Amino acid sequence: MKKDLDRLMEERGLDAAVVGGNVYGNPTMNYLLNGAAVGGGIIVKKRGQTPTFIHHSIEREEAVASGLELVDMSRYNYLSILREKHDRLAANVELYRRIFADLGVKGDVGFYGMADQGSAFVFLGALDQALPDVRVRGEYQEGLFDVARATKDADEVAMIRQAARLTCEVISETIAFLQRQRVEGETLVTADGAPLTIGAVKREIMRLLAERRLEDPQGVIFAIGRDGAIPHSKGRPDAPIRLGQPIVYDLYPRHASGYFFDCTRTFCLGYAPPEVEKIYQDVSGCVDAVIAASQVGVPARTLQQVACQFFEERGHPTVASNPQTEEGYVHSISHGLGLAVHEEPSFADIPSNTTTLQPGHVYTVEPGLYYPDRGYGVRIEDVIWIDEQGTLHNLTDLPRQLVFEMNGRGSR
Amino acid sequence: MKKDLDRLMEERGLDAAVVGGNVYGNPTMNYLLNGAAVGGGIIVKKRGQTPTFIHHSIEREEAVASGLELVDMSRYNYLSILREKHDRLAANVELYRRIFADLGVKGDVGFYGMADQGSAFVFLGALDQALPDVRVRGEYQEGLFDVARATKDADEVAMIRQAARLTCEVISETIAFLQRQRVEGETLVTADGAPLTIGAVKREIMRLLAERRLEDPQGVIFAIGRDGAIPHSKGRPDAPIRLGQPIVYDLYPRHASGYFFDCTRTFCLGYAPPEVEKIYQDVSGCVDAVIAASQVGVPARTLQQVACQFFEERGHPTVASNPQTEEGYVHSISHGLGLAVHEEPSFADIPSNTTTLQPGHVYTVEPGLYYPDRGYGVRIEDVIWIDEQGTLHNLTDLPRQLVFEMNGRGSR
Repeated sequence: MKKDLDRLMEERGLDAAVVGGNVYGNPTMNYLLNGAAVGGGIIVKKRGQTPTFIHHSIEREEAVASGLELVDMSRYNYLSILREKHDRLAANVELYRRIFADLGVKGDVGFYGMADQGSAFVFLGALDQALPDVRVRGEYQEGLFDVARATKDADEVAMIRQAARLTCEVISETIAFLQRQRVEGETLVTADGAPLTIGAVKREIMRLLAERRLEDPQGVIFAIGRDGAIPHSKGRPDAPIRLGQPIVYDLYPRHASGYFFDCTRTFCLGYAPPEVEKIYQDVSGCVDAVIAASQVGVPARTLQQVACQFFEERGHPTVASNPQTEEGYVHSISHGLGLAVHEEPSFADIPSNTTTLQPGHVYTVEPGLYYPDRGYGVRIEDVIWIDEQGTLHNLTDLPRQLVFEMNGRGSR
Repeated sequence: MKKDLDRLMEERGLDAAVVGGNVYGNPTMNYLLNGAAVGGGIIVKKRGQTPTFIHHSIEREEAVASGLELVDMSRYNYLSILREKHDRLAANVELYRRIFADLGVKGDVGFYGMADQGSAFVFLGALDQALPDVRVRGEYQEGLFDVARATKDADEVAMIRQAARLTCEVISETIAFLQRQRVEGETLVTADGAPLTIGAVKREIMRLLAERRLEDPQGVIFAIGRDGAIPHSKGRPDAPIRLGQPIVYDLYPRHASGYFFDCTRTFCLGYAPPEVEKIYQDVSGCVDAVIAASQVGVPARTLQQVACQFFEERGHPTVASNPQTEEGYVHSISHGLGLAVHEEPSFADIPSNTTTLQPGHVYTVEPGLYYPDRGYGVRIEDVIWIDEQGTLHNLTDLPRQLVFEMNGRGSR
């Protein structure tokens, strides 16, 4: 949580932390800016102090909403530095030198935020050379903000809950939209008699998202039949929707607040083949088993072991017995969720992963079973929040239901 | 253009280029992946060869659409490397060592793509140390892909044109939506008699965007009156829409192809105050003057000089006479446009900017005049493409019109 930043900086021996770059695609900038609608800038946090936001002059009014100490970038007259130094690398080193001098930054300084990797390598190397009082530090794993962001405070949970409610609404409304369609034979058809395609359904999903100020930067998964058995297939736009074929619908939009939600439901329209029903029960049972195994202090990596064991006992191949399997259970059970759709805590089942479940964690539980050769896959995904008292809350307020009847306007 | 990559690599003394990270917020990944709907991976391009895409196993079917040479990441069994090395830094260095050995990568290797800046600093430093045959290189300015991406080939222009057509449609439809509203006194009102707010207009804009598979990752500007005089104000959601007040409407969405468009129109509903009319003519005249000054071989920085001179001659303060001015013309004239909403070519008016206009450049022309104390701002933005023959094309097919009459359902 944000309130842990000073303690986490002390543990890491950091005197200051710098976060930079554009806000877009840069969750740690978003985290510190508290939703201020700016494009980017530089944030400097000295240990024990409120961060300072060096903002673009043109965004001075938006910057106020960050609640941070503000410094207008125009104070440094970057263009005049650039005229003096002739190249951007030297000019940016000089800009940071002046900012650090003004703010009294020295000692061990950690750098964070998204940048071109080669540029960062060159720039931070040059800065480290140029500033004798500063030791440039980077973190490769369990970095300051990764760890702080992994546990959510009440404000963050409120925003995730809002994203949850709206995301579940979109899923319900999408299914209601499908139920309203006409059926010819086994195929859903539009008013003009042409098959209803996944492309058309996705346009409806986009409309439902937009109405709720949900953005879908990474693409919804709406995959039917065999495509649903390829876990990351987003679905072929020209594929028709047929009765009795399982549809994997995985929606992970970002709310206007910057927080993501992530939910998957698998369902059939009209009826479900018996073998799909069986698989569905196994996946749903696995969700329950993993949630039952979740409590504060449990090593995060055990959730994957619980899922693999649950499926192995029911005769499904898993990545535990064969890491390269493309049948059965083929992926990870969980990921943290917040300002990024995948973030800490990590649930990787490897000895170096010493993460344990903690109050404030928000994470998915998303087992699935995939049988491409049989033409179907099933995944169910709920999101769990562990509150301050260690109580688990399922934030996904949506029934698990395999079959949705059509409204009956069909000719079947 | 992509066809220039080998030449540009040779000029830079690069034997190979590596692009990595997630695709989201990472335009260079997008550029090389040719629209393949994957989440991320590693792309290695040796000079003179088709790039190799080391993709996640789970995305093997989507990876095919990239048209690149494919290697399934599962071949390296990353989890087993991680078990062996115990930490992610050592494991990722080992992963790259194995990939480079398989592909015969050595010599000078440039690294690109978005990553956490501190992580990149640590990782590339460790990689440089660990691989005796490889010299890790980064570029801080006018990097390989920045330069390649700055000139667009025919495929890219076709995608930008599509984004242009759809973006202009959304602007026209938004204005038509406003014209249909009822007016009470000077204020637009909804069916229930409450003032129509910017928040409600933005919801309509989101709907219009979603219908066209346009995403709006960075937020539309729809600002009325004084807010329009703060160039980056996005508009207050609770502000009502009134007749005779200039509205700055700046839309910069991303098309499903990944390419952005960027268009600004300023307009008044019902009527425009005479002083706004005067300002509008100056801004529109400036667009024409800057376009008239554009031709192949002209230094890009001169466009800003043309704009400043045009405005100074008409009595407006500009950043040329006062870099800190918050009145008059306060920003830059142009930016390149493509897979990022701001990219090369650079139009910064500084001596180190030696960029000249070239065939394939796609860039905005967006002068504006801002008078916060008088309560209004005006900006107009068109996009220019210079074709292979050096002919300019204005890709913004939208009239410049200051006043739009209401449809007359008002009580005014």
